[in-house]
Amino acid sequence: MDEKLEIARQLDLLGVDVIEAGSPMSSEGEKEAVKQIAKSGLKAEICALARTTREDIDAAIDCDVDSIHTFISASDVQIKYALGLTREKVLELAVDAVEYIKDHGLICEFSPMDATRADLDFLKKLCLAAQDAGADRINIPDTVGVMTPKGMYSLIEEIKAVVRVPISVHCHNDFGMAVANSLAGVEAGATQIHVTVNGIGERAGNAALEEVVMALIALYKYETGINTKLLYSTSKLVSRLTGIPIQPNKAIVGENAFSHKSGIHTRGVTVEPATFEPITPEMVGRKRRLEAGKLAGKQGIKAQLEEVGIHPTEEQLKVIVKRVKELGDKGKVVTDADLLAIARAVMGEVVKEERTVDLRDLTVVTGINIIPTATVKLSIEGREYVSTATGVGPVDAAIKAIQKVTSDLIAVKLSEYRLEALTGGSDAVAEVIVKVEDRNGNVVSARGVNEDIVRASVEAMIDAINKCLLRRRLKR
Amino acid sequence: MDEKLEIARQLDLLGVDVIEAGSPMSSEGEKEAVKQIAKSGLKAEICALARTTREDIDAAIDCDVDSIHTFISASDVQIKYALGLTREKVLELAVDAVEYIKDHGLICEFSPMDATRADLDFLKKLCLAAQDAGADRINIPDTVGVMTPKGMYSLIEEIKAVVRVPISVHCHNDFGMAVANSLAGVEAGATQIHVTVNGIGERAGNAALEEVVMALIALYKYETGINTKLLYSTSKLVSRLTGIPIQPNKAIVGENAFSHKSGIHTRGVTVEPATFEPITPEMVGRKRRLEAGKLAGKQGIKAQLEEVGIHPTEEQLKVIVKRVKELGDKGKVVTDADLLAIARAVMGEVVKEERTVDLRDLTVVTGINIIPTATVKLSIEGREYVSTATGVGPVDAAIKAIQKVTSDLIAVKLSEYRLEALTGGSDAVAEVIVKVEDRNGNVVSARGVNEDIVRASVEAMIDAINKCLLRRRLKR
Repeated sequence: MDEKLEIARQLDLLGVDVIEAGSPMSSEGEKEAVKQIAKSGLKAEICALARTTREDIDAAIDCDVDSIHTFISASDVQIKYALGLTREKVLELAVDAVEYIKDHGLICEFSPMDATRADLDFLKKLCLAAQDAGADRINIPDTVGVMTPKGMYSLIEEIKAVVRVPISVHCHNDFGMAVANSLAGVEAGATQIHVTVNGIGERAGNAALEEVVMALIALYKYETGINTKLLYSTSKLVSRLTGIPIQPNKAIVGENAFSHKSGIHTRGVTVEPATFEPITPEMVGRKRRLEAGKLAGKQGIKAQLEEVGIHPTEEQLKVIVKRVKELGDKGKVVTDADLLAIARAVMGEVVKEERTVDLRDLTVVTGINIIPTATVKLSIEGREYVSTATGVGPVDAAIKAIQKVTSDLIAVKLSEYRLEALTGGSDAVAEVIVKVEDRNGNVVSARGVNEDIVRASVEAMIDAINKCLLRRRLKR
Repeated sequence: MDEKLEIARQLDLLGVDVIEAGSPMSSEGEKEAVKQIAKSGLKAEICALARTTREDIDAAIDCDVDSIHTFISASDVQIKYALGLTREKVLELAVDAVEYIKDHGLICEFSPMDATRADLDFLKKLCLAAQDAGADRINIPDTVGVMTPKGMYSLIEEIKAVVRVPISVHCHNDFGMAVANSLAGVEAGATQIHVTVNGIGERAGNAALEEVVMALIALYKYETGINTKLLYSTSKLVSRLTGIPIQPNKAIVGENAFSHKSGIHTRGVTVEPATFEPITPEMVGRKRRLEAGKLAGKQGIKAQLEEVGIHPTEEQLKVIVKRVKELGDKGKVVTDADLLAIARAVMGEVVKEERTVDLRDLTVVTGINIIPTATVKLSIEGREYVSTATGVGPVDAAIKAIQKVTSDLIAVKLSEYRLEALTGGSDAVAEVIVKVEDRNGNVVSARGVNEDIVRASVEAMIDAINKCLLRRRLKR
């Protein structure tokens, strides 16, 4: 319940017009959550979802919401197989539900479910009946995501010709066209769009809020009332609370949506962002990222290095680029730290690959009724140190042991510890990525790869500390 | 290189017409990989990407490919800032590149990059010049993903009116419309579409192959020549080799694309799949999944239980549904095993929550120069057993130790070990999900959550074994 409330508050800050808070009839917890959202004093209209039954509508009314969105199947395939009813009965139930909601003084939105596969004459009849019964808005759902923008435009045009209340669209993404279909609906006269943050929802999900909003602003020049700077943080919040990850190549909010890899692209955005960016990352609360790799170009790498105060000569730059590409060829993602290490080596500051801190020995014990304990032996600038620490688990203990002995050399804070999702047997290779921050707020990331997760973690941490030390030396 | 080759082979099996294998000029490894793909005897046309420079084109020719895709910016913003050239110079370079490619007897595809933001008259002039120079295909790229389907339709219509060679489209997904824009291009007469598996690519990526193909087949009734049954395995392969994950709500290939949660949906697909599925999962090499949760309905849960041979009475079913919803309200994903456990408890087969196998003690040691070793003490049906084993890491050792002692009771194979991606400090909670398979091919999944990753893994494994035993008892 707390999580639903947190998301509702964020949506309200973002500036959405309506929050469909849930289906109160589906469970006790859901009902209580909708109730809490309705009374939390948000600016948005709070709406509850209900089938056309009294039971569902009463549960929604109980929650003290502003509006109820009621729906019933309009397509023959659903009427027959999902409901076991007839068209006549559907008309009757729809009218009855809308009247009942209006009798209770609430705003009523009506959806003929699966509208896009319904008989058009029947669909119009059903929409008109709901409107005559008092519905304030008619929503046209593409429930199984089978529309094309052209088809959606025609359908909304048809509905718009007979219905006088505002029209809304609700598109699913089964063929990846939910956003385009929603916008085609708007082109044809719809004035409300059902969206979800990150495009989550049944099956392939619904139209993504962030994509619809940014397209309306950037491509259609519409006002939306949305505070776009909060789009990224909203996306992150919803992903975290639902546990549904966002793929890196997701538009607007994906990790790579504003990162540039290919040399042509990095060179372009370095000179003029508009060359390869339709909107600035800042508009949606983000930052641009240049990435090195096998497709990297000279200008992008130069810009990346200059950002951290490193100015290679033209000759040095050529060699750096060559080395980056070699690393990229091995299928490796070239991190900022890798790039720094390459630049350092090429620019001859330290020719020999000598690490300041090196792991010499490690012993870790854990279990039940055993306090996880780690002992490390490190070689720092040639001298050996032994340190031991306990933690909540073996990884935590090992990292604490390392920090104990390296803190005199450089004080770093572990700001992120990420385990790449692993699939395979229990003997699959574990990949650990750490980000550490030094006292001046500089962040470096490093990775460790090993079949033993404890060793992978320790290697990543030691690598990160070495990179921090290197950075400090370079800056001097 | 091996990975690129593996992907090319899979694309060929899938039945794509052209494989753009890479940019030979970008690195030595890339060049070698393109060469290998070109000589591996695939049915598809093998194409290499090249800027309009001699250097790039020569590198591509060296690879012995069937065709070269050459491109140069067409929009003023890119001509000026990314290239530092003039329109005249761009025309000259384009013509020269196409002629040079044709002089070498290769198929030539020409792209005016950023076509969708270019001056329309100049764009037409450039396309015509390339055609006159011998280009076999003209590709219109929406390089920064700013088109709407309507706009793309008009643009392709305009180009089609002046160009006589086949037209191709290449759409980016910055506003989530790459698929719809590509299909609008086809509606206007384009006969080739540039796509990527899983929609990967610069920034928000390109039009997803699997979405475009299934939309062409299911919505446009076109023949594509693609063996759609391989779409899912192709998607998985590319995700595994690139390390780019697929979000669960991704169309066609996402984990949830064919799973149904809400009661209305599960009831519908149980009676007639067409009610809530635009295409069958089998078409793309997948299976349907019903999931229980707070929005679950009676019919869906009944169908899930009947699938494993459990037939609750109407009364029992009501109680099972109620318990599932209670669990769902806590924000929990209700796994198949959870549902089984609930059903068992409700149906009174075993009222007391007594686990057959229980973990009593665990000791794990690992480190450098230490063979990871685990010792477990398990209680099985009341008797205690001690077992010890070594492994590649502490988790592997612990799981092997458990299996040693439980294998007499039930032989299970660990078919999947997954660590949920963790973000936070080194003391963040680890979540381990395991799938184990018994001798009859039944799969159960279980999860363990603990700050200590070894303990989380052990708990998940023991839970899974208990669920397998429970399942066997229920079946008898």
